[in-house]
Amino acid sequence: MSDTPPRRLGAVFYPGWEMLDTCGPLEMLGNMPGIVEIVTVAQQAGPVRSAQGPEVVATYGFDNCPPLDLLLIPGGMSSRIEVENPVMIEWLRRRVPQAELTMTVCTGTALLARTGLLDGYRATTNKMFFGEVADASPNVRWVKEARWVEDGPFVTSSGVSAGIDMALAVVARLAGVEFSEQLAVATEYEWHRDANWDPFARIHGLV
Amino acid sequence: MSDTPPRRLGAVFYPGWEMLDTCGPLEMLGNMPGIVEIVTVAQQAGPVRSAQGPEVVATYGFDNCPPLDLLLIPGGMSSRIEVENPVMIEWLRRRVPQAELTMTVCTGTALLARTGLLDGYRATTNKMFFGEVADASPNVRWVKEARWVEDGPFVTSSGVSAGIDMALAVVARLAGVEFSEQLAVATEYEWHRDANWDPFARIHGLV
Repeated sequence: MSDTPPRRLGAVFYPGWEMLDTCGPLEMLGNMPGIVEIVTVAQQAGPVRSAQGPEVVATYGFDNCPPLDLLLIPGGMSSRIEVENPVMIEWLRRRVPQAELTMTVCTGTALLARTGLLDGYRATTNKMFFGEVADASPNVRWVKEARWVEDGPFVTSSGVSAGIDMALAVVARLAGVEFSEQLAVATEYEWHRDANWDPFARIHGLV
Repeated sequence: MSDTPPRRLGAVFYPGWEMLDTCGPLEMLGNMPGIVEIVTVAQQAGPVRSAQGPEVVATYGFDNCPPLDLLLIPGGMSSRIEVENPVMIEWLRRRVPQAELTMTVCTGTALLARTGLLDGYRATTNKMFFGEVADASPNVRWVKEARWVEDGPFVTSSGVSAGIDMALAVVARLAGVEFSEQLAVATEYEWHRDANWDPFARIHGLV
């Protein structure tokens, strides 16, 4: 039992969202009863189709989404469409500064970067599309070799699976590292605890 | 372009489904365009709430689900309820023999085992609840130390995250190991390729 109410985490969905980008972190952050509660939000409430096919239900639209303490922004190929969606970018530009912490996975970082709010901060993104994302937002201090990067109110992670490691780091921040370790064991996940562990930067020729 | 139509994978959902159990494998199996297409099915069509909160839309109910080539059965705490649900168990008992391959994650194996169809086959399940699952179905040849087990038409995996490694093994079976390797790199996932890799069996005192 905690004296403080749970933090409300808003998981942002858009058509073509990448399943593991979102569901990996939510598996971890969604197993913190009384500490974090998850809500789903999209431009319009209702079913939102993933890149892999299945649809998740966005409980809230951008117009009626309650205050959010934490934000999770996934990536995927369709983030290329969403960076050009002014409704998405304006909503993020308004909501991100109100959140205690904003997390991005993969090319979800491109959406956050497009708001301008990430300028001057250290950040990372998917390693296969690193150049494309970095070139579009040159004022971000891009980190090529990192599983995830924590800087100020932002926690940005590398491609797809990296979101799980990033989420466990955020769980540790919110509830202690022992809780993260227990969660990793309970979900039989080999947590990459070192934020600098990143073999994919080399595989994709970034370092 | 392939001459054969894509295999239809039915992802089974029930109230309290564990997000990563399902979405980890679907991230991999859902990135095989032309080879695998995913449909969602539950006892009744419509939104099905996960243990972590978000709802997925089951396109089909048990009564109108089309033929399935592949089946994916997730686990989670609420599988304890579903093993006692005769509608679920009867549907699986009818549909599993019609599928080319049935995959289970975590305590999803308990559901498959309850049908009796797994009797005599080698199989594994979540390591934290191994004893409970194994004791309930003593005629299964339970393997304590395994990330996943392939035997006949069944591929059963250990807890939660293990489903991702299992799915990549199934991807390799359907499209070749190079495709699996490319997919793991693209999703920045460190694939545990050895089905016998299982530190969690030891952590949970099974070996």
